[in-house]
Amino acid sequence: MKKRVAVLRGDGIGKEVTDAATAVLDSIGRRFHHEFEWVNGLLGGEAVDKAGQPLPEETIKICEESDAILLGAVGGPAWDNHPSHLRPERGLLQIRKHFELSVNLRPVQAFKSLLAVSPLKEEVAEGVDMMIVRELTGGLYFGEPSFHDNEKAVDTLVYAREEIERVVIHAFELAKQRRNKVTSVDKANVLESSKLWRKIVEEVAENYPEVEYEHMLVDAAAMKLITYPAAFDVVVTENMFGDILSDEASVITGSLGMLPSASLRADGFGMYEPIHGSAPDIAGQNIANPIGAILSAAMMLRSSFGMEQEASAVEKAVKSVLEDGYCTNEFKNIGRKVLSTREMTEKIINEI
Amino acid sequence: MKKRVAVLRGDGIGKEVTDAATAVLDSIGRRFHHEFEWVNGLLGGEAVDKAGQPLPEETIKICEESDAILLGAVGGPAWDNHPSHLRPERGLLQIRKHFELSVNLRPVQAFKSLLAVSPLKEEVAEGVDMMIVRELTGGLYFGEPSFHDNEKAVDTLVYAREEIERVVIHAFELAKQRRNKVTSVDKANVLESSKLWRKIVEEVAENYPEVEYEHMLVDAAAMKLITYPAAFDVVVTENMFGDILSDEASVITGSLGMLPSASLRADGFGMYEPIHGSAPDIAGQNIANPIGAILSAAMMLRSSFGMEQEASAVEKAVKSVLEDGYCTNEFKNIGRKVLSTREMTEKIINEI
Ligand SMILES: CC(C)[C@H](C(=O)O)[C@@H](O)C(=O)O
Ligand SMILES: CC(C)[C@H](C(=O)O)[C@@H](O)C(=O)O
Repeated sequence: MKKRVAVLRGDGIGKEVTDAATAVLDSIGRRFHHEFEWVNGLLGGEAVDKAGQPLPEETIKICEESDAILLGAVGGPAWDNHPSHLRPERGLLQIRKHFELSVNLRPVQAFKSLLAVSPLKEEVAEGVDMMIVRELTGGLYFGEPSFHDNEKAVDTLVYAREEIERVVIHAFELAKQRRNKVTSVDKANVLESSKLWRKIVEEVAENYPEVEYEHMLVDAAAMKLITYPAAFDVVVTENMFGDILSDEASVITGSLGMLPSASLRADGFGMYEPIHGSAPDIAGQNIANPIGAILSAAMMLRSSFGMEQEASAVEKAVKSVLEDGYCTNEFKNIGRKVLSTREMTEKIINEI
Repeated sequence: MKKRVAVLRGDGIGKEVTDAATAVLDSIGRRFHHEFEWVNGLLGGEAVDKAGQPLPEETIKICEESDAILLGAVGGPAWDNHPSHLRPERGLLQIRKHFELSVNLRPVQAFKSLLAVSPLKEEVAEGVDMMIVRELTGGLYFGEPSFHDNEKAVDTLVYAREEIERVVIHAFELAKQRRNKVTSVDKANVLESSKLWRKIVEEVAENYPEVEYEHMLVDAAAMKLITYPAAFDVVVTENMFGDILSDEASVITGSLGMLPSASLRADGFGMYEPIHGSAPDIAGQNIANPIGAILSAAMMLRSSFGMEQEASAVEKAVKSVLEDGYCTNEFKNIGRKVLSTREMTEKIINEI
């Protein structure tokens, strides 16, 4: 197959980890006879500097003409004092909304060989393998009215039935391919939006008799993600709760650098990015962990291109390098073999 | 001194742990020559059954005629299918709003002798001693409009300047008596209400040059509470974020049964309750942990009655019993001496 991919490397280590991901996909292309065409576009801080806005028109055009988007990370102290509309992360919110990337998938896994770096006790983190499904284009993030003056501030949490249905159905579909369990997180004892959410979950669940589901209040979920994380399979929740809970859960792995994400439109088009930030303090030093970006590329193969075998090949290669005792700089204190970003990328490519 | 206290034992284990707390305070009364008058009122599920509403008028009257409120816990499966206005927790929200209990304090400590039961590695949990200050009567919990029908749902996050100022000032005042550090948690890269929040924190901070403060995004805070919890001293945040983060942080201790809370009005009037729920599964078995309720009573002595010495006496007694190796049923697997609710209460009283 021939696929055209918009590559938005962004700022800081976003650049080096995206390069790692495209290098790995090139080797997948050679092995499985696909051709990936990479088209670079600006996003985030660099886009503000060079094009005067975090998401330039030109970048939108590049993405529209592509089959998927591969993203690095955006932001950095250089843009911290810019007005809101010139903040790098504004570009992220805009691109999500523009392309209707309403379903955000964040898998969280405990890698056996890295249990030593998890803040959780090894027996608590062991075996964790969950998929957090976050609604990404509704709720408090985009509701109107939304304003503040010196005396008062208002944000609005709005959801329409279709927005909730879409993400909940996605969660149940995923559960069927996994361990057949969905935990829907809401705050139905307080929020009206959660009451509608809960109702829709119950309606959708009727079409999935094989999937076991439960409702959990967000405060209870924030506890259970730490006390008993292995109990979760698929977790589905609204935008703001998803932001908080997915970051919370991500610490189980012991390093944000390991974790990928996908943001999907209903037709399968998607944007793929590691969950870590641009880490300006270590940018350009060839020490960043490329695995989150590489696993994001694997999610792209699976979710946007239907290349299941190729996605698994990438995931297996990563696993095998980890099992051989290799790691990047952030794990240097646990007696493993430390590689640079490029060396790690090469090792993974060699396993493919 | 003579103090009149409204006792709302509530449902499930709320009853037994509240009895433990009043017994401990009676012994404080004997030792320090105070007289506590306990006046019982209905709240929650039992109130729904006996008075047709979760917060009866009679209970409000009892509280208004008292110097403070001691609360157990409310709720249980018996009321799970009641309509919203007849849910036990509705009574909680109503009492907070009625008495303007806008500042919620939730201390989180890692007890050295219980590190083995924390889901966090001992070296991560060790030394944790933070105070979470949550705004309790504003934000998404009470904003209008708030409704849902079959197609759409809306909740509104509203804050007025005074509401934010009040809780932020409280946090800085507490920091002065602690380790002089405030972490203000918001989502200023997305929410307008968080922008006003951040601005007010900066204004208030100017009056506390000795207190170091930082802003932290809620998603980053959800991570750091687990990866590096000992870094926090006072954490201040809005209602919904506070609900999620305080429950998240509470797991560090290893048992919710240990943790107290206070909900305060500007003039010092307050409501005190353990953070655990009504635990219907173990209610009436004399095995619940009374320590959260007892430490809540200590917070009442300190915050509403200005009885610092008496509060410390309770806290020291609890600590010493824990250090002697005693615990209640939920810790039975870590080789400690297990006591019933009443035995634990007696042991603590004996230390006073
Ligand atoms: C940068 C920020 C706007 C964004 C969000 O809140 O969605 C980030 O935290 C994320 O989770 O992708
Ligand atoms: C019972 C519920 C309404 C309440 C809240 O969300 O405030 C509880 O979770 C709490 O934290 O006291």
